Amino acid sequence: MTFITDDFLLQSDAARELYHGYAEDEPIYDYHCHLPPEDVASNRRFSNLFEIWLEGDHYKWRAMRANGVSEELCTGDADPYDKFLAWCRTVPNTLRNPLYHWSHLELKRYFEIDLSINEDTAQEIWDAANAKLKEDSLSAHGILENFKVKVVGTTDDPVDSLANHKAIQNLGIDTKVVPTFRPDKGLAVDNPVAFNGWAERLSEVSGMDVDSFSGFIAALKARHDFFHDMGGRLTDHGLERCFFAETSEAAIGAIYDKARSGVAATVEEKEQFGFYLMREVGRWNADKDWTMQLHVGALRNNSTRMFEALGPDTGFDSIADISQVGVMGRFFDSLDRTNQLPKTVVYNLNWSDNYSVATMLGNFQDGKTPGKMQLGTGWWHLDQKEAMEAQMNALSNLGLFPRFVGMLTDSRSFLSYPRHEYFRRVLCDLVGADVESGALPRDMDLVGGMVKNICFQNAADYFGIEGV
Amino acid sequence: MTFITDDFLLQSDAARELYHGYAEDEPIYDYHCHLPPEDVASNRRFSNLFEIWLEGDHYKWRAMRANGVSEELCTGDADPYDKFLAWCRTVPNTLRNPLYHWSHLELKRYFEIDLSINEDTAQEIWDAANAKLKEDSLSAHGILENFKVKVVGTTDDPVDSLANHKAIQNLGIDTKVVPTFRPDKGLAVDNPVAFNGWAERLSEVSGMDVDSFSGFIAALKARHDFFHDMGGRLTDHGLERCFFAETSEAAIGAIYDKARSGVAATVEEKEQFGFYLMREVGRWNADKDWTMQLHVGALRNNSTRMFEALGPDTGFDSIADISQVGVMGRFFDSLDRTNQLPKTVVYNLNWSDNYSVATMLGNFQDGKTPGKMQLGTGWWHLDQKEAMEAQMNALSNLGLFPRFVGMLTDSRSFLSYPRHEYFRRVLCDLVGADVESGALPRDMDLVGGMVKNICFQNAADYFGIEGV
Amino acid sequence: MTFITDDFLLQSDAARELYHGYAEDEPIYDYHCHLPPEDVASNRRFSNLFEIWLEGDHYKWRAMRANGVSEELCTGDADPYDKFLAWCRTVPNTLRNPLYHWSHLELKRYFEIDLSINEDTAQEIWDAANAKLKEDSLSAHGILENFKVKVVGTTDDPVDSLANHKAIQNLGIDTKVVPTFRPDKGLAVDNPVAFNGWAERLSEVSGMDVDSFSGFIAALKARHDFFHDMGGRLTDHGLERCFFAETSEAAIGAIYDKARSGVAATVEEKEQFGFYLMREVGRWNADKDWTMQLHVGALRNNSTRMFEALGPDTGFDSIADISQVGVMGRFFDSLDRTNQLPKTVVYNLNWSDNYSVATMLGNFQDGKTPGKMQLGTGWWHLDQKEAMEAQMNALSNLGLFPRFVGMLTDSRSFLSYPRHEYFRRVLCDLVGADVESGALPRDMDLVGGMVKNICFQNAADYFGIEGV
Repeated sequence: MTFITDDFLLQSDAARELYHGYAEDEPIYDYHCHLPPEDVASNRRFSNLFEIWLEGDHYKWRAMRANGVSEELCTGDADPYDKFLAWCRTVPNTLRNPLYHWSHLELKRYFEIDLSINEDTAQEIWDAANAKLKEDSLSAHGILENFKVKVVGTTDDPVDSLANHKAIQNLGIDTKVVPTFRPDKGLAVDNPVAFNGWAERLSEVSGMDVDSFSGFIAALKARHDFFHDMGGRLTDHGLERCFFAETSEAAIGAIYDKARSGVAATVEEKEQFGFYLMREVGRWNADKDWTMQLHVGALRNNSTRMFEALGPDTGFDSIADISQVGVMGRFFDSLDRTNQLPKTVVYNLNWSDNYSVATMLGNFQDGKTPGKMQLGTGWWHLDQKEAMEAQMNALSNLGLFPRFVGMLTDSRSFLSYPRHEYFRRVLCDLVGADVESGALPRDMDLVGGMVKNICFQNAADYFGIEGV
Repeated sequence: MTFITDDFLLQSDAARELYHGYAEDEPIYDYHCHLPPEDVASNRRFSNLFEIWLEGDHYKWRAMRANGVSEELCTGDADPYDKFLAWCRTVPNTLRNPLYHWSHLELKRYFEIDLSINEDTAQEIWDAANAKLKEDSLSAHGILENFKVKVVGTTDDPVDSLANHKAIQNLGIDTKVVPTFRPDKGLAVDNPVAFNGWAERLSEVSGMDVDSFSGFIAALKARHDFFHDMGGRLTDHGLERCFFAETSEAAIGAIYDKARSGVAATVEEKEQFGFYLMREVGRWNADKDWTMQLHVGALRNNSTRMFEALGPDTGFDSIADISQVGVMGRFFDSLDRTNQLPKTVVYNLNWSDNYSVATMLGNFQDGKTPGKMQLGTGWWHLDQKEAMEAQMNALSNLGLFPRFVGMLTDSRSFLSYPRHEYFRRVLCDLVGADVESGALPRDMDLVGGMVKNICFQNAADYFGIEGV
Repeated sequence: MTFITDDFLLQSDAARELYHGYAEDEPIYDYHCHLPPEDVASNRRFSNLFEIWLEGDHYKWRAMRANGVSEELCTGDADPYDKFLAWCRTVPNTLRNPLYHWSHLELKRYFEIDLSINEDTAQEIWDAANAKLKEDSLSAHGILENFKVKVVGTTDDPVDSLANHKAIQNLGIDTKVVPTFRPDKGLAVDNPVAFNGWAERLSEVSGMDVDSFSGFIAALKARHDFFHDMGGRLTDHGLERCFFAETSEAAIGAIYDKARSGVAATVEEKEQFGFYLMREVGRWNADKDWTMQLHVGALRNNSTRMFEALGPDTGFDSIADISQVGVMGRFFDSLDRTNQLPKTVVYNLNWSDNYSVATMLGNFQDGKTPGKMQLGTGWWHLDQKEAMEAQMNALSNLGLFPRFVGMLTDSRSFLSYPRHEYFRRVLCDLVGADVESGALPRDMDLVGGMVKNICFQNAADYFGIEGV
C-alpha cells in the first residue's frame, strides 16, 4: 500500500515546497505532554506492540466501543494479542477519523510498516513490530533522539518529588525534560477527602505546615519555586471554564478551614476558592515569566456506570456547550489590572467558541511580549485536520498567525511524535493553498519562514525553557 | 438546460466512480418521514403539480414570504396555478438555497422536465407535469416502486389506531411501511386542555383506564407494544432539549393528577414529568431493541401573529442557540446506569453543537451494538449540502463514519425521494475528494464499500425492521 | 511585487468573468459607516500617510499590541513616522490576517504602491504616499468621486444638530450623504450621569421639555422626524443582545424618573427600559418605512486597565458567546404582532450563531417587502474572507441570497472603500466556484445578474434613500 507517501496530505506544489523545504527537518519542541517521567528516567523498552501502542489509549477505546468491541478487549484482562486484533478489526471502521491517519503514520514511522491495517494484516503487523521493538532505536531514549525531540514538558502534580526529573537530568540526554506545575487537585475543596489527602502530601513534600490557608498557599508557592529550580516554566490547568468570583481573603480562609474539617465547599465557595487560587498561581507565573496553560471546555466522566467501573480518563469525556468567554475575560482582567497577567495559552475544546476565545485573548495582548496571549492548537477531540485548520484560521483571522507557538502532543505515548509531522503537513497544506490561490504572496522566504518558525522557533522563543 | 446532469455535484473522478459504482443503485431505507399512511393505503393520485409539489410545503412558503409573496399565494385560497406561478417566480431568487437544487431535481426525476424554473417556463412545466401525473408511475405506489423504497417509517401518534397501516399490510406492496411511536402530546402537562383530550383518546384506543398516572403509563406502554406488533421499531421525539429532573414517582403522579384536574404544570413540573416519561419510553425501547430518535434544538412558533392565523408547522420555526449537551448527557446516563439506554439517533438542529453532541454520544457507545449512538444526518434547516457535509465531518472526526445509518427524507411529500440521491451525491463528492487528496486510500473496495453501506445496509442492520 | 493582481482572490474562470463582467464597475452604496461628516463638509485633506491610514484605527492597534509594540507607538505621543514604521514592522506578522490584504490593497488603490509592506520598504512607501496625498484625487471629495460612492450613511447621535450634513447638502457633490439615527446613549438609565447629560442635550437640540418620560420620548421622536427630513432612512443600535422585558408604561416612567434623579436603574429595569425604547424606535421606523440595523453580540471594554487609560473603542472588544436568539425573536414578535416590525438588518458578531439568527429572521419575512429581514454581512471581527463566506453561505442556505443588500464599510477611514472591492472578489470567487462545480447553472445572465444586484441595486431598492 502507498497510503503514507512522502507527500501525504500535501495537495499543491506550494504545500510540498513548504513542507519539504521548511517544516520537515525542524526539531520538535513538545511543550505539553503526559509522558511518564519514569519511562524516560529508566529508558523504558516495550515488550510488544500492544504495550507501546494500545495500553492506556482512551482514543482507541472509544473507537472500539463504538465499533461494538467489548470492554474485556478494551480495558479488560484479555490477551494482549486479542486486544490488538480487536483494534485491527476496528481500524477500517475509523475511515475519515484521525485514528486512521495516526495509526498508519505510526506504524510507518516507527516500524516501517506500510500495510493497510485490518484483521487480515494483524498477524504480520504484530510480528514485524515486535521484532523491531527489540532494537535500541525503539527504547524511550532512542525514540526521543530519532524524532529530534529537543524539549519534553511533562505534566506533574505539585506534590510530586520530581525524583524522576532529577534522575533524567543526571542522564545527560540531549532532550531537555522539564516538569509542568498542574495544581488541579488543590482546587478540590468540594471533595474534602481528596483535598485533605492532597494537602497532607503537600505538607510532607514541602516540609511546611498547611494548617491554615496561608500555610497552604505558602507551601504551594514553595513547590512552584522548586519546579522553577527544576527547569519548569509552565503551569497547566484543566477547568470546565475559568473561575471568577471575588471575595475576601478571610472568606477564602474559611472555605479552606471548612474543607480541612471535612465539610465540602458549596458550588459558590468552590468558585471563589478556585478564582483565588488561580489568580495566585497566575501572579507567580507573571512574576517568574512562566506561561499559564488553560485547558477549558471539557465535560468529564459522563457515564456514571463506566466511571464507577474504570475511573476518570478512560474515554467518557466530551465537549461542553456552555457560555465561557465572559468569565475568562474577567479572570484575565483580574490579573491584568495589576500588570500580573502571565503569558497564557488557552486550549479551547469547543471550536464553536474559537472566535470568541481568540478575540478575548486579543484584548489582553500587552505590547511587550509578541504573541503573549495564545490560542492553543486543536486539543483532544479537536486534534484532527478539520479542527486544526479551524484553529489556524481563527488565529490567523483574529490574531497574528506568524507568532503561533504551534504543536504539542498532549500524549501519554511515545508513539505520538508523528502528530507533529501530521500538524506540519496540515499547516503546509493550508498555507500552501493560500499561496496557490493568491491569498498569500508567492514569497517563499516570507511564507516559508513563517512556517518554519511555527514548527519550532516560536515555541523556543516564547516559553524560554533554558538551554534550548 | 443541462443543470441536473448525470454527474451533478460530483466534482472528481473518485466522486463519480463512488456514486455510479456504489451509491446510485442502492435501494432506499427511509426510516423517518411524515408521509400520510392513508395516501399509501389508498394509492393516492395527484390531480396537478400544485397538489403533489406545493401543498403543505412550509419550506417553499418561507422562501416565498421572503421573496415578498403574499400569504394568499402561500397558504391562502388563491388558485392552484397562481400559487404555482408565484413559486416559479420565486425559484430564481433561491439560487444557492437547497430549494433550487431540490426543485430542479424533482422536476427532472419525476417528470423528465429539464427546464430552468422561472416565470417564463411556468406554463410549460405545469402542462407537462400534469400530463405525466396521469400515469400509474406517479401514483403513491408507483413512486415507491420506481424509487426502490424498501422501507417507509411514518410518524404516528400513540393514540392512532394504525388502521391505515393495517390496510397497507394487506395490500402486499413491496415497500415495508411501519409506524413510529411519537408520544410528544403525552408530555403536555403544561397544557391541560390538550393533555386531557389526548389522555382520553389514549384511554379509548387502548381500552384502559387512565384515571391515575399508573393507568396512563400502562396504557401508553400497551400502545408501544401494539406498535411493535405492527412492525414499529422506532420512537421519535421533538424536544427543544432533553429533559433531566429527577423526582419521586409520587411527585410525578401528583403532576399528572393536577393536569388531569385542569391545572397546568409549572416549568419545573413539566421538566420532571418529561424526564420521567422519556426515561420510561427509553426503557421500553431498550427492552424491545427499538431505536429512540431525538429531534432537538428547534425554537418553534416564533411569530405569534402567524401562529394565531395558521397554527403550528407553517414555516415559523428556527434554530435555538441554547446550552443543551449537559442535560442530554444526564438523560442518557439516567438510562445507561441500569443498562437500559436504547439505540439512539440524535438530530441536532444547531450545527454549532455538532461536535458537542457527537462527543456526548461517544460517551455512551456500549461495546455491544456497533454505532449504537448515532449523530443523525442534517435535519430540517440543516438538510442541505453545507450542513450535511458538516454533519458527516463531525461524525467522521469524532466517531465511526463507516457505521453511519445515513439519510432519511423527514418529508410530508412523495416528491422528496431525490433527497436520498442528493445526499448520496454529497456523500460521494465529499469522500471522493478525500480519495483524490490522499486523505483516504485509493482502495475502492474499502471506500466504496463504506459508501454503499451508508446508503442502505447500515440502516437495515441497525434498525432491524423485520422482513427487510 | 505582484500580490494585488487584477485577478486577486479570483480562483476560477467563472469567478473572473463574474467579477470583471458584473461586479467591478458597480458604484458603491455605503449605507453604514462612521466617516466624520465634518470631513466631507470641509473636503478634508490629509497631511501624511499616518493621518489617513493609522490615526484612530483600532484594528491596527490590536495587531501591533499582539506583535509586542508599545502603546506609545499605537495610541501614544510618538512621532507619526515612528508609528508608521512600527506598523510596517508589524505587517509581515499579519500574514493570513485581513489586515495584510487590506493594507496592500489600500496602498495599491489609493497610491499605486505595489511594494510588500515591511520595515525595509517603509521609507519608500511613506515618501511616495505623502507626495500623492497632495493631489486633489486624495481629498475627501476626490476619494468619494474616484470610488463612485453614491451613498454614505454616517452614524449620528440624535442630539447632533446635523449641521455638517446641512453643509454637505449645500455642497452639491454627487455623493448622497445621509445621517443614521443611533440612540444608544438614550438607553443608559444605568448610568445616570451620562444619561442626564444626554437628556439635557436632547432637550436643547429639540427645544422640548424632557422632565417626564413622555416628554423625553416626544423629543426623541422629534429628532427621528428631523433625521427623516435630512434624508435619513436608517437607525442603528449597538446591543450586547436584544432587550425583551414587558412592563407597564408607568413602570417605564418611574425608571426614567429614577435615573433623572441620579439613581442608576437595576439590570432588570435597564432591560425593561431598553425594550420599551427599542420597540418605540422600531415602530417609528415601520411607520416611516425606515430600516433598523442591530449590531449584536459584542463584549466591550474587557480590559479595565486600558479602558481607564484610553476609553472605549480602542481595541479591547471581543465576541460574546451568549444565548441571544430567543430574546431577539421575542423582540421582533413584539413589533410584528401589531404589524409594526420595520425592515431589519442584523449584524451578528458571533458566526456560530449565523444559522440561528438567519432562521429567526426567516420567521418574520412578511410577504410584502422582498428580503425584509436581512442577515447583515460580516461585521468587525467577521469582516474577512472566511467569515464573509460563512455569512453568505448561511444566508444562501437559509434565506434568499439574491435579495442580499451586500457590503458596507462600517469604517472611520476614507481609505476603506477597497473593502467593497474585497467583498466583491470574495463574492465572485464563492459564486464562481459554485458555477464551476455545477452547484449553480452556468447561466451568466442569471448568476451574474444576482452578483450585480448584490453589489449595488439591491441596497438601493431596499433602503430607499431618496435621489439614488
